[in-house]
Amino acid sequence: MANVGIGVVGLGRMGQVYATHTARQIEGATLVAVADPDREALARFAAQVPGVEVLSHYQDLCAHPQIQGVIVASPTSTHRDVVIEAAQAGKAIFCEKPLALTLRATDEIIEAVQRAGVPLQVGFMRRFDRGYAAARRKIDAGAIGQPVMIRSIGRDPYRTSLEFANPAVSGGLIVDMAIHDFDCLRWLMGDDIERVYTEVAALVYPELLGVGDVDNAMINVRFQGGGLGNVEVSRTALYGYDIRCEVVGSKGTIEIGYLRETPILVLTQEGVTHDVVPHFPQRFGPAYTAQIEHFVECLRHARQPAVSAADARAALLACLAATLSQREERVVTVDEVSERSQ
Amino acid sequence: MANVGIGVVGLGRMGQVYATHTARQIEGATLVAVADPDREALARFAAQVPGVEVLSHYQDLCAHPQIQGVIVASPTSTHRDVVIEAAQAGKAIFCEKPLALTLRATDEIIEAVQRAGVPLQVGFMRRFDRGYAAARRKIDAGAIGQPVMIRSIGRDPYRTSLEFANPAVSGGLIVDMAIHDFDCLRWLMGDDIERVYTEVAALVYPELLGVGDVDNAMINVRFQGGGLGNVEVSRTALYGYDIRCEVVGSKGTIEIGYLRETPILVLTQEGVTHDVVPHFPQRFGPAYTAQIEHFVECLRHARQPAVSAADARAALLACLAATLSQREERVVTVDEVSERSQ
Amino acid sequence: MANVGIGVVGLGRMGQVYATHTARQIEGATLVAVADPDREALARFAAQVPGVEVLSHYQDLCAHPQIQGVIVASPTSTHRDVVIEAAQAGKAIFCEKPLALTLRATDEIIEAVQRAGVPLQVGFMRRFDRGYAAARRKIDAGAIGQPVMIRSIGRDPYRTSLEFANPAVSGGLIVDMAIHDFDCLRWLMGDDIERVYTEVAALVYPELLGVGDVDNAMINVRFQGGGLGNVEVSRTALYGYDIRCEVVGSKGTIEIGYLRETPILVLTQEGVTHDVVPHFPQRFGPAYTAQIEHFVECLRHARQPAVSAADARAALLACLAATLSQREERVVTVDEVSERSQ
Amino acid sequence: MANVGIGVVGLGRMGQVYATHTARQIEGATLVAVADPDREALARFAAQVPGVEVLSHYQDLCAHPQIQGVIVASPTSTHRDVVIEAAQAGKAIFCEKPLALTLRATDEIIEAVQRAGVPLQVGFMRRFDRGYAAARRKIDAGAIGQPVMIRSIGRDPYRTSLEFANPAVSGGLIVDMAIHDFDCLRWLMGDDIERVYTEVAALVYPELLGVGDVDNAMINVRFQGGGLGNVEVSRTALYGYDIRCEVVGSKGTIEIGYLRETPILVLTQEGVTHDVVPHFPQRFGPAYTAQIEHFVECLRHARQPAVSAADARAALLACLAATLSQREERVVTVDEVSERSQ
Repeated sequence: MANVGIGVVGLGRMGQVYATHTARQIEGATLVAVADPDREALARFAAQVPGVEVLSHYQDLCAHPQIQGVIVASPTSTHRDVVIEAAQAGKAIFCEKPLALTLRATDEIIEAVQRAGVPLQVGFMRRFDRGYAAARRKIDAGAIGQPVMIRSIGRDPYRTSLEFANPAVSGGLIVDMAIHDFDCLRWLMGDDIERVYTEVAALVYPELLGVGDVDNAMINVRFQGGGLGNVEVSRTALYGYDIRCEVVGSKGTIEIGYLRETPILVLTQEGVTHDVVPHFPQRFGPAYTAQIEHFVECLRHARQPAVSAADARAALLACLAATLSQREERVVTVDEVSERSQ
Repeated sequence: MANVGIGVVGLGRMGQVYATHTARQIEGATLVAVADPDREALARFAAQVPGVEVLSHYQDLCAHPQIQGVIVASPTSTHRDVVIEAAQAGKAIFCEKPLALTLRATDEIIEAVQRAGVPLQVGFMRRFDRGYAAARRKIDAGAIGQPVMIRSIGRDPYRTSLEFANPAVSGGLIVDMAIHDFDCLRWLMGDDIERVYTEVAALVYPELLGVGDVDNAMINVRFQGGGLGNVEVSRTALYGYDIRCEVVGSKGTIEIGYLRETPILVLTQEGVTHDVVPHFPQRFGPAYTAQIEHFVECLRHARQPAVSAADARAALLACLAATLSQREERVVTVDEVSERSQ
Repeated sequence: MANVGIGVVGLGRMGQVYATHTARQIEGATLVAVADPDREALARFAAQVPGVEVLSHYQDLCAHPQIQGVIVASPTSTHRDVVIEAAQAGKAIFCEKPLALTLRATDEIIEAVQRAGVPLQVGFMRRFDRGYAAARRKIDAGAIGQPVMIRSIGRDPYRTSLEFANPAVSGGLIVDMAIHDFDCLRWLMGDDIERVYTEVAALVYPELLGVGDVDNAMINVRFQGGGLGNVEVSRTALYGYDIRCEVVGSKGTIEIGYLRETPILVLTQEGVTHDVVPHFPQRFGPAYTAQIEHFVECLRHARQPAVSAADARAALLACLAATLSQREERVVTVDEVSERSQ
Repeated sequence: MANVGIGVVGLGRMGQVYATHTARQIEGATLVAVADPDREALARFAAQVPGVEVLSHYQDLCAHPQIQGVIVASPTSTHRDVVIEAAQAGKAIFCEKPLALTLRATDEIIEAVQRAGVPLQVGFMRRFDRGYAAARRKIDAGAIGQPVMIRSIGRDPYRTSLEFANPAVSGGLIVDMAIHDFDCLRWLMGDDIERVYTEVAALVYPELLGVGDVDNAMINVRFQGGGLGNVEVSRTALYGYDIRCEVVGSKGTIEIGYLRETPILVLTQEGVTHDVVPHFPQRFGPAYTAQIEHFVECLRHARQPAVSAADARAALLACLAATLSQREERVVTVDEVSERSQ
């Protein structure tokens, strides 16, 4: 079977990772071109990965006849335009999360993709992590009975820049970070979120309040089927990158996550010490690769990707409801947010 | 120093434990008498622990001249009367949790105890567990900086009887179980609770709905100083008794709890397996003894016990607010509940 | 059923523990008397546990008509005389390990006990630890198939005194410490030891060489049935008391032991830290009580104790063979040592 | 800096891994050619990794002017000839372990390499594992004081084929497997081995006896500086691939290894279950890549690789001594084996 041609839009941190991996490691894929308005970034990439076309305009990449799949890793604010362009050109699309910061942009994307009849996969890479994937298989196999409760913790080891923390740029703590947790909540419970209630704090980095953001959020969740959930997102975990999830079922429970990086323990009179995962590349590196492998695999076999634009919309909706709850200090249903946006 | 004389009111499960331990293991204490209306229970105890007076009426025990301290382990509905009787007789009092199911009864107890000038310790035994106590010492020593977030999980391995689940009897899931968690929240954060929001479910034991109870509750918490909290209580942890707590600070985090009972691992082709703590006597047995040791120690040295009636009131208040939030599906402040009760 | 009368010979550290527990915690037992040549020790005990006879001569204790069982916790060098006296008086005997430091004394004890027809239990308390006991049950149930290999590690957190380290007093590192490990080897493998080879070192406490002892020993073992074993004993584990065992079977493996004391983890930028078990009372406290419960239980129901004098002899034989191997730097069979002693 | 040209000799399992990784993942390296007498293997590889020369004779590869470094992954019996050819051609050499099965062949290799003045790195990939490497750094930094004892466990989840088990082919259990352990012993203790004593068994796979091999070996070790060691190698760990090491120092201890594969725990009434690492690619995959990165890095910067031919010789010597000890059932010094071979 011939390789599929891939183009990558955006050479920021994630774009470089996707482009390099596609060029070197993803079986069945050939990296045809990368696009970025920054000429220096293009030059650096060309030196590092020879034999790939470098383009200044994503429109040229979307129109490239040897490209069947477009990986969108440009800034979130540009996702809508790039995805619509790629869809209209009939390309399969992989888009880094979040798809967009507003329901309106998300819906425009969904509409364009549906009209063009092209597949779109969203970068919820946790679904491709071996731990999360194994948990889902165990749940499907009935290992814990019916899922009734879920808790998801996402902690970053340091705060983001104040520029990025600004809700107008990143969507704020909840949209930026909890979108992964909400996707996992839906995926592992097999149910949709009904309503949320958010408490927030900014005790460690009070300067975040000045740009409209906070450093910790604790979100209570009820699912449509009556299950319970809780999401905690934090920028104050100085000790490391700590991503955990627990699904409680009627017959048992599953815990996902670990608090160890290298497999060594040091025992001295001060106690037993081991290290912690420092940040996301150490924790989810293989999952980033695995999701692109899935995208290429689906493209080669004309299958639908496992993570759809509808999933991205549902996770964003939960984030927006949780953010509204944060602002108005009351319980908010996702229906209310959905209706408001129309 | 002479031993102090102790009387135990109530020979139910906890009363028997307290009486036996006092008779045999607590240094500096002599078990003088036990009281229970059930004559057979008295006879059984007399056969098991010879040399202790057995009384049918708690009033006789409270009036006993050789008794300086009374351990109240009778049904919760009788706590108010027994404690007031003991206080008026000038005895020091240890009362099993919950002190009472209503703020009114709690306040009557507090008033009687203050008027009599006697000390009262409440049975929040987690404070005497080596794990919780070590965590508190670490926090006090600054090991994690300023505490900003806390989560407490309390899971029982099976549901209670429908009779007991009835909120009129036990106060319902939250008052019955989460009172321990709310006490730990206050104690470890060093702050008071401002408001709560509760989501509940009864997906595993829907029959609980018939008596007005549920099997799982997820409670979001905000502290007066702006910290965040979350309490989960569950009757559906078929896999074992699972009590955990995590305190997140500005410089680190502390996790309390364990998921192993005996120190053996079995590794076969099916994977690695170990056991879990089956129920509370295995997890907190030593803490039950340690709290009585503390009570006796305080009595002998005329010191105030570390767990006061005010602590019991504050934990109950949080439980009542969380229960009101459960019923009315809205955020509830503890002030609102406190004012209502007056 | 009436309580059995117990006498304790020797009020050293272990004697006090056994006497206090028998007086207070062991169901079905009454502590009748204690014996020790040290009058002050007797006086201190009398003040602490009233109502027990205190005797200067163990002979009087052995002759006491209300005593059915004698717990021997006097210095090892006196075990032979005390045990023989108790046996001739027809008492059941519990003797702290090691039964004796020589095969000759051991055999004299065994002969006296057999002639008197009284039961004798030896203080191999690890068999009563919940971890070791659970491992044995798993092995018996076939969980790991046929046991083929075992490793046992025994590490003390500091070195003993030079006086005690002297092989003439304690038997040396291997007899003093590895006797527990060799008992576990035999008990968990269900087989007898055929030969051993020992390597030793004194790199941390070279002063031990001056009294004829070492601080670490690594002993290779072959069982009669062809299985393999390894025993490590160490006085240099400054980080804590570390007792572990692993049994490898044809279908799986079992690990016994843990490296955590209180159930808390502290996570900071320096890593994750937890404590370790400091010393044997924290690790094996309940096992010390459990073995006396077993002794009393056997006495009350006229059953043979689970740990026999023959077990003590076999473990000592392995220790002596390992010590001979240490001195002569060659492989030694237990048969050789057994024959030499005759 | 220009890329270095790499050739891979041998397209067996490891050869394919090295060739593919060099072609795709190793920065600074270009895979120029592969050599294998099997034409089908060459054809398959050419289809998978286009643009690489495929050669039937390793002599052609060694003579290739664009190749600076040769990775030798052909059968062990051919190592000597290939390495000498490459050395004489002036190439830097990476040779998969074991360098050779005899001291004579090893010494011929060492002589040829020294005469040619080319660097030779041996495939002791554990040194490039993050756990082992972190342990070494901790030891160097004094975290555990002076190392005094080491234990290394290497367990495979199933037995090898009878053909391969034959000592004439693989060197037998100890040479085949324990060579990694002996290398780690020397590297982590910073000392050379003085003598060994081996016990073996074949209780699970007695058919191995028919070809002169066994399924378990337990090897006691003394170092020249007086430290102690123990190596266990096993083919009977049906539960998984279990590689562990512990270094005990005068001030603390370090444990390397883990018994978990994916980061999930499943808790049910049957207990807590998690998986184990199935085999070496899951455990040491990144280390295999890291050692080639090191080789290429050394080649580019004209540095000596960290793992030398002398290390390979010393580890083989310990294996041969342990194998001799196995056969003659006595303690064997490495000097004896070294002298014998001359």
